[in-house]
Amino acid sequence: MRDYRPERPEPEDFDDFWSRTLDEAKAFDVAAGFRRHDLPLTGVDVHDATFAGWGGHPVNAWFITPAGAGERLPCVVEYVGYNTGRGFPHHHLVWPAAGYAVLVVDARGQGGRSFDSPGGTADPGGGTFAEAPGMMTRGILDPEHYYYRRVFTDAVRAVDAAAAHPAVDPERIVVSGGSQGGAIAQAVAGLRGDVRAALIDVPFLSHFRRAVEITGADPYREIVRFLSAQRGMEERVFRTLSYFDGLNFAARGRVPALYSVALMDDVCPPSTVFAAYNHWAGPKEIVVYPWNNHEGGSGAQVERQLHYLRELFAAG
Amino acid sequence: MRDYRPERPEPEDFDDFWSRTLDEAKAFDVAAGFRRHDLPLTGVDVHDATFAGWGGHPVNAWFITPAGAGERLPCVVEYVGYNTGRGFPHHHLVWPAAGYAVLVVDARGQGGRSFDSPGGTADPGGGTFAEAPGMMTRGILDPEHYYYRRVFTDAVRAVDAAAAHPAVDPERIVVSGGSQGGAIAQAVAGLRGDVRAALIDVPFLSHFRRAVEITGADPYREIVRFLSAQRGMEERVFRTLSYFDGLNFAARGRVPALYSVALMDDVCPPSTVFAAYNHWAGPKEIVVYPWNNHEGGSGAQVERQLHYLRELFAAG
Amino acid sequence: MRDYRPERPEPEDFDDFWSRTLDEAKAFDVAAGFRRHDLPLTGVDVHDATFAGWGGHPVNAWFITPAGAGERLPCVVEYVGYNTGRGFPHHHLVWPAAGYAVLVVDARGQGGRSFDSPGGTADPGGGTFAEAPGMMTRGILDPEHYYYRRVFTDAVRAVDAAAAHPAVDPERIVVSGGSQGGAIAQAVAGLRGDVRAALIDVPFLSHFRRAVEITGADPYREIVRFLSAQRGMEERVFRTLSYFDGLNFAARGRVPALYSVALMDDVCPPSTVFAAYNHWAGPKEIVVYPWNNHEGGSGAQVERQLHYLRELFAAG
Amino acid sequence: MRDYRPERPEPEDFDDFWSRTLDEAKAFDVAAGFRRHDLPLTGVDVHDATFAGWGGHPVNAWFITPAGAGERLPCVVEYVGYNTGRGFPHHHLVWPAAGYAVLVVDARGQGGRSFDSPGGTADPGGGTFAEAPGMMTRGILDPEHYYYRRVFTDAVRAVDAAAAHPAVDPERIVVSGGSQGGAIAQAVAGLRGDVRAALIDVPFLSHFRRAVEITGADPYREIVRFLSAQRGMEERVFRTLSYFDGLNFAARGRVPALYSVALMDDVCPPSTVFAAYNHWAGPKEIVVYPWNNHEGGSGAQVERQLHYLRELFAAG
Amino acid sequence: MRDYRPERPEPEDFDDFWSRTLDEAKAFDVAAGFRRHDLPLTGVDVHDATFAGWGGHPVNAWFITPAGAGERLPCVVEYVGYNTGRGFPHHHLVWPAAGYAVLVVDARGQGGRSFDSPGGTADPGGGTFAEAPGMMTRGILDPEHYYYRRVFTDAVRAVDAAAAHPAVDPERIVVSGGSQGGAIAQAVAGLRGDVRAALIDVPFLSHFRRAVEITGADPYREIVRFLSAQRGMEERVFRTLSYFDGLNFAARGRVPALYSVALMDDVCPPSTVFAAYNHWAGPKEIVVYPWNNHEGGSGAQVERQLHYLRELFAAG
Amino acid sequence: MRDYRPERPEPEDFDDFWSRTLDEAKAFDVAAGFRRHDLPLTGVDVHDATFAGWGGHPVNAWFITPAGAGERLPCVVEYVGYNTGRGFPHHHLVWPAAGYAVLVVDARGQGGRSFDSPGGTADPGGGTFAEAPGMMTRGILDPEHYYYRRVFTDAVRAVDAAAAHPAVDPERIVVSGGSQGGAIAQAVAGLRGDVRAALIDVPFLSHFRRAVEITGADPYREIVRFLSAQRGMEERVFRTLSYFDGLNFAARGRVPALYSVALMDDVCPPSTVFAAYNHWAGPKEIVVYPWNNHEGGSGAQVERQLHYLRELFAAG
Repeated sequence: MRDYRPERPEPEDFDDFWSRTLDEAKAFDVAAGFRRHDLPLTGVDVHDATFAGWGGHPVNAWFITPAGAGERLPCVVEYVGYNTGRGFPHHHLVWPAAGYAVLVVDARGQGGRSFDSPGGTADPGGGTFAEAPGMMTRGILDPEHYYYRRVFTDAVRAVDAAAAHPAVDPERIVVSGGSQGGAIAQAVAGLRGDVRAALIDVPFLSHFRRAVEITGADPYREIVRFLSAQRGMEERVFRTLSYFDGLNFAARGRVPALYSVALMDDVCPPSTVFAAYNHWAGPKEIVVYPWNNHEGGSGAQVERQLHYLRELFAAG
Repeated sequence: MRDYRPERPEPEDFDDFWSRTLDEAKAFDVAAGFRRHDLPLTGVDVHDATFAGWGGHPVNAWFITPAGAGERLPCVVEYVGYNTGRGFPHHHLVWPAAGYAVLVVDARGQGGRSFDSPGGTADPGGGTFAEAPGMMTRGILDPEHYYYRRVFTDAVRAVDAAAAHPAVDPERIVVSGGSQGGAIAQAVAGLRGDVRAALIDVPFLSHFRRAVEITGADPYREIVRFLSAQRGMEERVFRTLSYFDGLNFAARGRVPALYSVALMDDVCPPSTVFAAYNHWAGPKEIVVYPWNNHEGGSGAQVERQLHYLRELFAAG
Repeated sequence: MRDYRPERPEPEDFDDFWSRTLDEAKAFDVAAGFRRHDLPLTGVDVHDATFAGWGGHPVNAWFITPAGAGERLPCVVEYVGYNTGRGFPHHHLVWPAAGYAVLVVDARGQGGRSFDSPGGTADPGGGTFAEAPGMMTRGILDPEHYYYRRVFTDAVRAVDAAAAHPAVDPERIVVSGGSQGGAIAQAVAGLRGDVRAALIDVPFLSHFRRAVEITGADPYREIVRFLSAQRGMEERVFRTLSYFDGLNFAARGRVPALYSVALMDDVCPPSTVFAAYNHWAGPKEIVVYPWNNHEGGSGAQVERQLHYLRELFAAG
Repeated sequence: MRDYRPERPEPEDFDDFWSRTLDEAKAFDVAAGFRRHDLPLTGVDVHDATFAGWGGHPVNAWFITPAGAGERLPCVVEYVGYNTGRGFPHHHLVWPAAGYAVLVVDARGQGGRSFDSPGGTADPGGGTFAEAPGMMTRGILDPEHYYYRRVFTDAVRAVDAAAAHPAVDPERIVVSGGSQGGAIAQAVAGLRGDVRAALIDVPFLSHFRRAVEITGADPYREIVRFLSAQRGMEERVFRTLSYFDGLNFAARGRVPALYSVALMDDVCPPSTVFAAYNHWAGPKEIVVYPWNNHEGGSGAQVERQLHYLRELFAAG
Repeated sequence: MRDYRPERPEPEDFDDFWSRTLDEAKAFDVAAGFRRHDLPLTGVDVHDATFAGWGGHPVNAWFITPAGAGERLPCVVEYVGYNTGRGFPHHHLVWPAAGYAVLVVDARGQGGRSFDSPGGTADPGGGTFAEAPGMMTRGILDPEHYYYRRVFTDAVRAVDAAAAHPAVDPERIVVSGGSQGGAIAQAVAGLRGDVRAALIDVPFLSHFRRAVEITGADPYREIVRFLSAQRGMEERVFRTLSYFDGLNFAARGRVPALYSVALMDDVCPPSTVFAAYNHWAGPKEIVVYPWNNHEGGSGAQVERQLHYLRELFAAG
Repeated sequence: MRDYRPERPEPEDFDDFWSRTLDEAKAFDVAAGFRRHDLPLTGVDVHDATFAGWGGHPVNAWFITPAGAGERLPCVVEYVGYNTGRGFPHHHLVWPAAGYAVLVVDARGQGGRSFDSPGGTADPGGGTFAEAPGMMTRGILDPEHYYYRRVFTDAVRAVDAAAAHPAVDPERIVVSGGSQGGAIAQAVAGLRGDVRAALIDVPFLSHFRRAVEITGADPYREIVRFLSAQRGMEERVFRTLSYFDGLNFAARGRVPALYSVALMDDVCPPSTVFAAYNHWAGPKEIVVYPWNNHEGGSGAQVERQLHYLRELFAAG
């Protein structure tokens, strides 16, 4: 399994699709705003950040730096897991405690139900067809309207938003995330060569075809539910998904990547994670957690990432 | 419980809100279209119907009549249960077999996952905030943007669409539905006095406050999930819901209504159904199923409705 | 899997067993009775039908025709799924709407608990040993007394009952059903060469040995439960089942058959369905639903069947 | 709750029904047979017993005595819990070890699936209507055909069978059982005044109306399932059940009874047990287990019963 | 419910028991050790702390301060939830970011299975009787040997350990925790008057009698499981628990306390939390989360606590 | 699978470890005590037995013989399943009824929650690290402190305790048990050559590596839970387990062994049972139950064992 490197389902116009998508987004100024957020935290500066994502829609984020940082800092842009949001600022103190800025970006429309990590960003894009509950099938009949087109575009622009802040060193931006967040970080790193590294944990949205066939768990299962109702739409659905499959972004990744995978993961099956990892085209490492389910390395992997970035930046 | 008739949470501008909403919708021509749908069914004429709902968005429906009907027929406009769609035409043969036309209307955005009753109508309206999965919390912070504002408006206009067909007698249109469909039928009958009757089974979306407090089951539970994450938004949420509470529509119902309720219903608790029924302001009957859960009377209630309408129309 | 065609566990006296069984049943006149059932349905004529099944026991059915049919009609004889009954007449309007008569036949003893499709036919035969709850193990120690001996015999005679009605063209009787109903239709088509076609959806009771070994779901699991308690009775049980295995009926099928199978079916595993299909000895087609569980094609398959029969009868 | 003593739903002809039932059964000789069952057990004599129950049908039992017993022994006639059978002889050594004979009686038709306590007695009586899976609704539309008419009759005759064995002192027969077995023991003690005592643990089948309304657990739930499908049959069902309600048997109990009840029992709610206990008309005690579910006192209650019977028989 | 203030089950020698317990513990020097823990975190100083708890057993903790703190800081001593441990240092950055030291203390024996918050402290005390799995019944037959005697003693001494660090201002130590951690903080604040405040979220171990009677959820349910097996030990068990009931500690609380409670909490029922809160003898506030289960206020409550402590210390 | 005989993970000092362990235990006199236990059972003599187990800790057992046995009897030493205890004396009458003595031995610390088979023996040894709930990970980081070191030592000494009773023939002691009890019997028979035979049903604790990798069920799963939290301790854990793996005890078994295995066992996978059986070095038989889960042969296997021992002892 560790060497599993399947064929990628790449549409011919994959690059066109994405360059067009990102170009269209550029019609909207990124308009990054950072409003000081008052909390009794003296060690960090917290900002309620916003920027214009896909379609110019406002996306919420927390931007946190060590208090009174005097120099341009490296910055971790962090993406969130499925059905969660940016949560509370004090959840994101680890990078500032390590001397980095951090920008934690909502996934639009999500975060309405996570009592631990609520979010508040709308997805005004809406649907173009009936949906199965959840985000996985919103607009799935057409790559132009698929939900993750908007999310990935937001995420690419989050890097611009981070770079726009005077405390951030644009040369040292790292993307990061677990599960959906890992998928987004992987996509961003595949779409823009100018991030410094990618931290990708138990990534979701990779090798869709295999995942939906073998996994009995949500959120991949949302797609099965849709296909079970919308008989005959399989071809259209998988065509759409081919524009969003992590395998294709991984194959475009050129920057250093630190992956992690859990061998008992039944949400994002490890074979699909290895499939992405083995396609990653840049320098890479993977940490394997043999006894964990989708939680993966959890805090242990965060410590691993702290070391990884220290070495990366120490090396220049 | 059978006499339970709680206070209604009615906002002062309830009627204004709805007359404004429906007026705005009238800016869009209802544009009812009926495209013949070829099926090897000789006893009925099936049409794939569409009309302009809220915001002018296209809404799908099946329109079915007895084959070769030569006179204007009474018509049942039927609304669907949560997470389902209009399904297959041959699911809706009972009213044509009784000599009626039937128009079965999608609930926008829903129906993506029901393998028995798929739907295909989009909800392009989108959200204005993060959502809990499902439709219950889409736009819930503001009555203007709440999902059911669009659905109820679609439903009101479905009656116009039905009336627009030459085979339909506009004086004899009945609205009908179970669960969400019952809530919609109840709302339509409360909003327009020109339907002939309402068939309302185990209605959902009635007496929200009690339902979300006592019910452990979805879809009411979606609202609890949202509130558990979005702490402090309770007031805004219940204010929004007060514009959509079945109690307020029931209090405006003037036409004959046939309700049904199931005493072991843990999805739409029977107390909330009686609450609506006891507020209904027109002639009314309720059929009680003591041993059923949310399935209520199922086919038995359909037979009851056939008799009810026969008598109703026989009486003129 | 699609070519899976395992050995069949056929007892030497399989044909003798069944011809003797059916001959014994003929000792009882089929005594088909059709009592007009009053419903406010003008488009169809509904009859509460009964006939003498195995042991002369009365079996209930609905018999429905297009209203006022003047000629002899083709007729679909439909068998029901496990634990359901004939349900409500208005559930069975699709064949009449297509110009056919339909006879929907109870499975004896079942239908006591399905709130959607209740039945009311007794199984007075009783058991000859202790049973696991459900019907699967009633009389399972002896083919003479096995429950399905009575059910299949009822089903064979249902065709005679249909043929006995003056509105039915005995040359154009089709058997049909899903799951248990599919198994019954398959058995009837294997036992009598005079039906015109068989519509067999996700059939149950086929390739018992494999099914009980690999499936964790009821109702096959009832047999596992019995064997886990009645240690040492395995040989007797599988000997009995060999007289009722769909593989053996399929191998005797000579008429055109339209099968369907769902690849995510965990109640009737698709391999067991293909096993039956690949043994079918007559003209055949199979529709594959890759993303569905035991619901299979549902309404989509019904539409497929409407087309199939139209072409079949058009061809003569 | 401990004093709960509700109205009893007693039909006028309750006593007639049962005396007629038992009289009819007497048409069949009890025909108790005791076949030596070879096991490497030197301390007991084990017999595979059989006798003619309701309708003369053979009922299986184990009859076990201390090895080489030279005098007439007191005998415990034990009835089994729902869905179990007489099990293995070595499960029933406690009474012989205490110097009693024991007769453990199958419940007809049950025991097909209990891997711990299989049974092997058939219920050839069969049904007179569709059933919900399980035994609770077999024949439930008519007291003449209800399943428990046969079971209780078998149980009454089991006492005759025990008394027929030369090693048994017919003056010292005690009936015993838990759950369904408790209900049966209670019924037998109510129907025949000649048993010496009754040991009734967490009895089932008592105060049906309340039990089916408040309990969400099987087997009472089987009745709810039936009623949910067979709408409108409530009156007939509860009329039938009134002939079998433990409250009515308890009110006829004149012999000493030792009950037990568990306060966290969600299968046989404690209120229904107290209801029966408080109606018991003879000398009585009840042991309350506050922290147990339906397992009740388990082995602790058996020890209690050993003491109880020792004192009872010591007192003469 | 909000005013619920039941009788407290307080043994006469409650204070003696605890003063003796804590005195005995003093025989062991607290021996607080702080070993620098190397992590790539520049904003904080992390120490792997240990101290001698009950019986002199080593207890693990994380001790974290803002980097290079030059003055004596207020310190939050935090206790952990059931079955978790101190976790990873970077989980505990919120208090340092607010300018406090924090000491996060393992609960002995726990933390072996939490993939998010592992712990590593042994409970060498062992048991004095059979246990139900989990910690709730270890030693429960005797207050001397009950598990929480050791845990609460550890917790009291953790305050000494914190006070022993030169960076901590012993006058400004606050105890804190949620669920089990809340119960521990409550106990510590009740046992020693010298902490500055207590932050008590959804406390566990309060009003045992009611909790075990009404709650179906673990860990309270562990006690029910024990009582269901160890029939007759109820009196001993509740006597032991009376020495550990949060109601008794609350009644001794004199320092300011900030509680929180969740109205949909089915692990620690809100009535039991209000019972403790209403007995708290010092200044107090409670935050009510109406729509949350046992997660309570989560990050929102942390923000509330940050404000609360800022005001508390601002006021001196 | 039936011939599966994997490599054994045997540490070099396995024999040293165990001889040292047992020698250390011999420092404590076995101190077998047999206190007459009064029950109204005339056919057996029941003793509440105790003896000094590992560390001299008292271990409880029931010792039961046929009443007034005049000669030295063969004796079955029986070990109990996970989370149960010695239960009630009357649960263990089968061996006395067959003319044997029986000693039923508690597993220390367990039995606190089994309402059917409670136990009362403490495990004062305690832990040396955090634990996952249950016994499986207590002390798992070090073979010296692992929980089963104490249990297996207790079990070895139980044979000495049995042999110490004057009614027991020390040459005819048989060890027996199912699941955990089977694992213990297997270990005892591997550790001491002087038992006469071993009855080993569906043994647990055999082939740990495979079991924890493939089984989703407790109690093996407790180890996975521990490893998922205590990342990086895998090597230490499996090193510890290698001293306790049933494969290594089986390879040392020289006496006749009767195994049983269930092919649908998802608690102790059959491959792991065959792995042990195929390593057993003495005379052996295995009974295969194809349709059972972890209950295996249940009472049927007990009958098999009765025959097996009769033949064994008949042969001398």
